[in-house]
Amino acid sequence: MPEDASPPPARRRRHGGRAGNTRRTGPAIEQMPWRIPINMDRPTEPMPPEGVARMHDAAMRILEEIGIEFLHPEAARILRKAGCTVDGENVRMGRDMVLEHIAKAPSQFTITPRNPDRQITIGGNAILFGNVSSPPNYWDMEIGRKVSGTRAQCQDLLRLTQYFNCIHFAGGYPVEPVDVHASVRHLDVLFDKLTLCDKVAHAYSLGPERVEDVIEMVRIAGGLTHEEFDATPRMYTNINSTSPLKHDWPMLDGWMRLARRGQGLIVSPFTLAGAMAPVTMAGAVAQSLAEALAAVVLAQIIKPGVPCVIGTFTSNVDMKTGAPAFGTPEYMRATQMTGQMARFYGLPMRASGVCAANVPDGQAMWETEHSLWAAIQSGSNVVYHAAGWLEGGLIASPEKFVMDCEVLQQLQRYMEPEIWDTSDDALALDIIAEVGPNGHFFGCQHTQDRYETAFYQPFLSDWKNYEGWEAAGGVWTAERAHARFKAILADFEPPPMDVAIREELSDFVARRKREGGAPTDF
Amino acid sequence: MPEDASPPPARRRRHGGRAGNTRRTGPAIEQMPWRIPINMDRPTEPMPPEGVARMHDAAMRILEEIGIEFLHPEAARILRKAGCTVDGENVRMGRDMVLEHIAKAPSQFTITPRNPDRQITIGGNAILFGNVSSPPNYWDMEIGRKVSGTRAQCQDLLRLTQYFNCIHFAGGYPVEPVDVHASVRHLDVLFDKLTLCDKVAHAYSLGPERVEDVIEMVRIAGGLTHEEFDATPRMYTNINSTSPLKHDWPMLDGWMRLARRGQGLIVSPFTLAGAMAPVTMAGAVAQSLAEALAAVVLAQIIKPGVPCVIGTFTSNVDMKTGAPAFGTPEYMRATQMTGQMARFYGLPMRASGVCAANVPDGQAMWETEHSLWAAIQSGSNVVYHAAGWLEGGLIASPEKFVMDCEVLQQLQRYMEPEIWDTSDDALALDIIAEVGPNGHFFGCQHTQDRYETAFYQPFLSDWKNYEGWEAAGGVWTAERAHARFKAILADFEPPPMDVAIREELSDFVARRKREGGAPTDF
Repeated sequence: MPEDASPPPARRRRHGGRAGNTRRTGPAIEQMPWRIPINMDRPTEPMPPEGVARMHDAAMRILEEIGIEFLHPEAARILRKAGCTVDGENVRMGRDMVLEHIAKAPSQFTITPRNPDRQITIGGNAILFGNVSSPPNYWDMEIGRKVSGTRAQCQDLLRLTQYFNCIHFAGGYPVEPVDVHASVRHLDVLFDKLTLCDKVAHAYSLGPERVEDVIEMVRIAGGLTHEEFDATPRMYTNINSTSPLKHDWPMLDGWMRLARRGQGLIVSPFTLAGAMAPVTMAGAVAQSLAEALAAVVLAQIIKPGVPCVIGTFTSNVDMKTGAPAFGTPEYMRATQMTGQMARFYGLPMRASGVCAANVPDGQAMWETEHSLWAAIQSGSNVVYHAAGWLEGGLIASPEKFVMDCEVLQQLQRYMEPEIWDTSDDALALDIIAEVGPNGHFFGCQHTQDRYETAFYQPFLSDWKNYEGWEAAGGVWTAERAHARFKAILADFEPPPMDVAIREELSDFVARRKREGGAPTDF
Repeated sequence: MPEDASPPPARRRRHGGRAGNTRRTGPAIEQMPWRIPINMDRPTEPMPPEGVARMHDAAMRILEEIGIEFLHPEAARILRKAGCTVDGENVRMGRDMVLEHIAKAPSQFTITPRNPDRQITIGGNAILFGNVSSPPNYWDMEIGRKVSGTRAQCQDLLRLTQYFNCIHFAGGYPVEPVDVHASVRHLDVLFDKLTLCDKVAHAYSLGPERVEDVIEMVRIAGGLTHEEFDATPRMYTNINSTSPLKHDWPMLDGWMRLARRGQGLIVSPFTLAGAMAPVTMAGAVAQSLAEALAAVVLAQIIKPGVPCVIGTFTSNVDMKTGAPAFGTPEYMRATQMTGQMARFYGLPMRASGVCAANVPDGQAMWETEHSLWAAIQSGSNVVYHAAGWLEGGLIASPEKFVMDCEVLQQLQRYMEPEIWDTSDDALALDIIAEVGPNGHFFGCQHTQDRYETAFYQPFLSDWKNYEGWEAAGGVWTAERAHARFKAILADFEPPPMDVAIREELSDFVARRKREGGAPTDF
């Protein structure tokens, strides 16, 4: 089992792997239960109806008159056969055809991972949060500087992904383990992801071998036949267009393979206004929509009804430095505008939890808050990078992960309708009369019956007064988060997995490594 | 001029008070212009219409059946004469009477300070932000610990209040100067506020002498006759009920004096669910509404049409420690629910920018973000404590002030409709066609014409990549905010004031000090 850096759970328990942690008696933190949050807030819709119509017309005119480049001959063939005008790699498609095909995509679907209790619903009013994906670098308070990602760090972040109930799916690699050769990296990380987590997993669309390997590993981990795997979504991919106006070969190849297998498909153009898209937000959103819808059309031609999600990653560059900015006012409005269009097209939507900050400080949190509120306000269904992201996605940080999970739990609680219950019991007129103008509510039975569950209880926020906080060491949030991170790792138990399945996964990885893994010429 | 700790502006300039700052050439920061933000987002309304009806009924039943204590005999007399049932200090009022009187309050009004360019509109879709008010303590990164407030700190925070265009009014004392005796504190702070700021000022309702002194000082600062002062709002007060169900004497006295003079009136019950109000949010909101509306009725009887604002300060206690929590999910929903009711009653609304955090770190910003978004989502018109608040209002911090102003600027920009413009120019189809799939948008004319104004430019957020940030010293947000605070102080120029008016103000303060100031037995 050379690809498994950590001992399997059974052995770990037998050999006292948690011996260093004997002082702990309870869990590392008290957290909220696993739950799919339902967002019933009316979306924020900056564009009036005529703005939506104009935005739709602009996206359609990009598809009809300008076209999208599909750098995959098979994709171009499929699109030509379906009626598109193909000129080399440039593909143009009429709006009637576009609307006909995207109407086949479901407005809501499920993905079922190896633990069916972790099934997620994408679409409707559900809103799901996932871990940070794909940073090449790592930062934590112990190291105190930016370093290249490693497999051990990736495993730790996968443990956080599994541990927190407010994280609903395991997205891309939470940090790129650059100490593992790129030809076999997907094998090692997917082995780690599928053994350390039992939540919905993602495959990068980086050429046929990686996608096929991940499909096979997800199928094995789920104990599924090929037919069972194909019958309903078990995993998903996310592709980014190469903006402006282009889908590249590796992404399209994975997209088409997962479309054929009926798996979840998310397309998220990365349209930085002023760089890869017009400097005006409406132009950047229109271009993003055209790029996304073109991929949805391709998927629906290949397999009508396959679940597709359109993502937004429209932000702006800092025009002084060219660096991308995140969680800005323009980012928020672009996300809300995309949400209006996703509802117009009847497609689920993906947004992100993002920031430009380099360390988990105040700026990191106000930028992340802005992006998370934009996700809620836009009616987004899938929130990528919702925990652990720093430096515009170039750094993964466990402290930021823990801090974000405190925020995500609060957002999950924010959506629980009992808060705004106006039953007689909640209005409590009898209690107000009983306590009267000279009493207080601490002691009354109405309070005593409810005080343990009435309010959100944080695991990271410190609500002590200054003196209490100072007496406890005067620890700022990021340092407290570091301590929680360490406590969670000490406390972590991988989810159970059948020994035979684990061995089959392990054998698969060993065989594919012997075969050389995947090409690295993408 | 013993009450003025800092030299007047003319002398400061003459004697080279800015000599220590000669290395600076431009302003301390590049900030957004003064503007009244207009919030066109549809409010978030958790309660269905029947919930609003039930909430209204509950508030009315508290007023009709339980009653509110008015600890001011004159107030009780006025209310009895108007038809209320008065039993000692307990006052009950029927819903017909309540609705009749609150209907007289305007849905929108202006307050005009000594500089008419700083006039503010309260109501409608306008949303205004004010400085932190009333913390007894101060914390900054240089001192590094919590200390009692001083007049010098109060002046520095008033300079920030004036300096930032995103701060629209000067609320209560940004920190209590406990080094100034309570009998004359209002004279010194109002002198400082009216000379260091030209924005709308507030008076504490702490007994007749203080209110009358502040009225007189605001009148003098504005160069107004008594008739001119009375003709239109020039200032305002904010009172808090003594929850549950009580308005105390000093607050009511100030409330009635300012009502007679036709000034702005804000009533903000402080209903911590589980302590001074029911543990259930609906009960806490109903009680808060009843307490607030009772004060509005009193004001409308005294002077029909006087401008009144209902505030919300409903949060919850941490049931483990009894400490108040702020910016929680429950706080957000209570604010939104109150917003629904403010619209139902046709009254402008006040909310707050608050947190429980003790230092300006990640927690401070996520809690403050939650409270600011609740203000926006609730359609609030006045946002108290929007800059500088820590420790549940017990600490004022200049770093937090500067960090909050970065957020407030972003919220102001978020409300600018050009972001979601869908004109042909903004959709930019020609430019998308021109750049095509192999170009980029940096160099094109459409970008060049707009790049300086297209996107929000922060003054505090650091958008450099990690290496650039590290090369610049690797400074975390709170430390950067401290440097901005110092630069702003070095750069600060008080707004112009007529020399004769300044002397009249100064003479007034000197005379009232000779007379002993105000009693301190409140």
